[in-house]
Amino acid sequence: MAYPFKFGLEAKDGRARAGRFTTPHGILETPLFAPVGTQASVKAITPAQLDEMGASLVLANTYHLYLRPGDELVAELGGLHEFMQWPNPILTDSGGFQVFSLSGTRQVDEDGVDFQSHLDGSKHRFTPEKAIAIQENLGADIIMAFDECPEPDNRAYNEEALQRTHAWAERCLVAQKRQDQALFGIVQGGIFSDLRTQSAEFINSLDFPGNAIGGLSVGESKSEMHAVLDIVDPILAEDKPRYLMGVGTPEDLIECVRRGIDFFDCVLPTRLGRNNSVFLRAGGRLNLKNLEFSSDTAPIDEHCTCYTCTTFTRAYLRHLIVAKEMLSATLLSIHNLHTLIQLAKDMRSAILNNAFEAFASSLLSQQAKLVR
Amino acid sequence: MAYPFKFGLEAKDGRARAGRFTTPHGILETPLFAPVGTQASVKAITPAQLDEMGASLVLANTYHLYLRPGDELVAELGGLHEFMQWPNPILTDSGGFQVFSLSGTRQVDEDGVDFQSHLDGSKHRFTPEKAIAIQENLGADIIMAFDECPEPDNRAYNEEALQRTHAWAERCLVAQKRQDQALFGIVQGGIFSDLRTQSAEFINSLDFPGNAIGGLSVGESKSEMHAVLDIVDPILAEDKPRYLMGVGTPEDLIECVRRGIDFFDCVLPTRLGRNNSVFLRAGGRLNLKNLEFSSDTAPIDEHCTCYTCTTFTRAYLRHLIVAKEMLSATLLSIHNLHTLIQLAKDMRSAILNNAFEAFASSLLSQQAKLVR
Repeated sequence: MAYPFKFGLEAKDGRARAGRFTTPHGILETPLFAPVGTQASVKAITPAQLDEMGASLVLANTYHLYLRPGDELVAELGGLHEFMQWPNPILTDSGGFQVFSLSGTRQVDEDGVDFQSHLDGSKHRFTPEKAIAIQENLGADIIMAFDECPEPDNRAYNEEALQRTHAWAERCLVAQKRQDQALFGIVQGGIFSDLRTQSAEFINSLDFPGNAIGGLSVGESKSEMHAVLDIVDPILAEDKPRYLMGVGTPEDLIECVRRGIDFFDCVLPTRLGRNNSVFLRAGGRLNLKNLEFSSDTAPIDEHCTCYTCTTFTRAYLRHLIVAKEMLSATLLSIHNLHTLIQLAKDMRSAILNNAFEAFASSLLSQQAKLVR
Repeated sequence: MAYPFKFGLEAKDGRARAGRFTTPHGILETPLFAPVGTQASVKAITPAQLDEMGASLVLANTYHLYLRPGDELVAELGGLHEFMQWPNPILTDSGGFQVFSLSGTRQVDEDGVDFQSHLDGSKHRFTPEKAIAIQENLGADIIMAFDECPEPDNRAYNEEALQRTHAWAERCLVAQKRQDQALFGIVQGGIFSDLRTQSAEFINSLDFPGNAIGGLSVGESKSEMHAVLDIVDPILAEDKPRYLMGVGTPEDLIECVRRGIDFFDCVLPTRLGRNNSVFLRAGGRLNLKNLEFSSDTAPIDEHCTCYTCTTFTRAYLRHLIVAKEMLSATLLSIHNLHTLIQLAKDMRSAILNNAFEAFASSLLSQQAKLVR
């Protein structure tokens, strides 16, 4: 029997939504931010630390894990939850984005994509059926349709790619054998209103248990991103989760929850953490390597309750950075991930209390005042 | 009033000792293994993880912290305990070893050492008085006399250096102003029995609250190291802790506790952890990058109770290594540190139960059977 994936919408406040999505490895409360564990490891962070920071959903990547260590090995070892020891929900993206952004020469046809591994140049082919088979081996709770990701402002390419993405979405549904994984469709169409409308209508009509919006946060402006969300929001089914792929700053989370988004993921918090940069919840970032922090006894963010902020001073964190101690990557990543996870939880509370707009306006106006 | 540093010898079993050393930041139960946090950070490990693995004493380094971020800044920020957020006992070594092993050109005279920073070539001078002043700024519970560390088999240099090390030890005692830090003397003399005897007698006569044995594990053979310990053991006061500097493999801990040592420290567990290598408690090491571990579902060491061994398979750890995920350094370092910390604790229990020799022989015979 198919697992009864169900999204319960608990409250709406304006277009902001609070919901619960039930998966085989636990209930996801939304809005949520999901840390990215590309290679079955959230960089520099243990599962115990993820749990401590309140993470619920963790991402892993089909393209990377197919190449290394191999999805068949992961299946043999009991699947991703067992492999990476994350007992809570996992989502794998389909590899579409990586095939089009990371691999060397590639050749797209109607059936699929030939590509070369970014690791060793070896040749591989992904089709919708292959992407589903890999994700079934990996065994995440939520899996993604195989899609094509064009540059957002190339009209001709977006038109052509959208037809493939839609045909592939249908083939993914047919290819799916496991019934305990929620397959999400992906809306594409770049920055073009008519293409996004067409894509949202088509993907929505396929009745996936969840819908994603792809191809954003890849170079377009914030207002272009917001415009796309404004288009797709009224089209996508209310009773299914909406996942905005690859978006993750405090500002973006607020603006996009405001536009009806439920799930977020992004590599930015950990990538910034490895590059000395930290989010402030009220907007903006600090580069902790700066000399001004050398004797600063404040935490990164005085309102933050993460392990890093409740334990260490900016002065110590700067010392770790200057001394090239790898602990700085761990501690800064903990802070950045916690900031987004907690912000999503706080937005959820605000929505449940019918106070989202006040909460959002207050934070956004603090950000607007930032002089940094 | 001076802090009443006191070593209580609880039990002796053969020459192996179980004791308790009281410091301003807590009681140290011996034998113990101390993780090394050279730059006020045990590499890739958080204080929470150190606590979870049962660490009691943590080391930091005078030479490194003097150069970066500066001992005066650490003092201004509340001292090392506050700076690195390790609320339990800390020991700083004096910088002697690093001045002689790391720095560029150096010039020793009777008064001290001129040296160049390994970081930027800048010129500095350490004297016994300076080394104490820095360590008083850093504020550890246990501080070390400034010593000279010659190659262990150079007779003429050892003879000459030993006179300086002894004169410097006396000057360190005079220079000490803070009364809440236990200053330990250091026995030198290379591999030469008469020099080690002379040094142990002299250092012991100065009545430090603890005595260290330096200049070992730097290229001499195991039997040469053991011979030195056999010489100094009957000379050093029974009612003071003995600290063997820079020694830390499972085999070494057993053989040296057997010869009357109470404290150990070593960078090896974390250095090996960053280089894919893990200790087995029963002796030997595994290189987890090896292909043979790619589908091995066993933990690193089936008897180990560390976070890594109770959570992850060798197959996952190998994947992290091959995928160049920095989490591998953290997880392997946790295992290696835990192995030595727990081994020291288990030796302590055996000594208190008058069963040390059986415990040691059993482990050493397992090691002898190793085929790896």
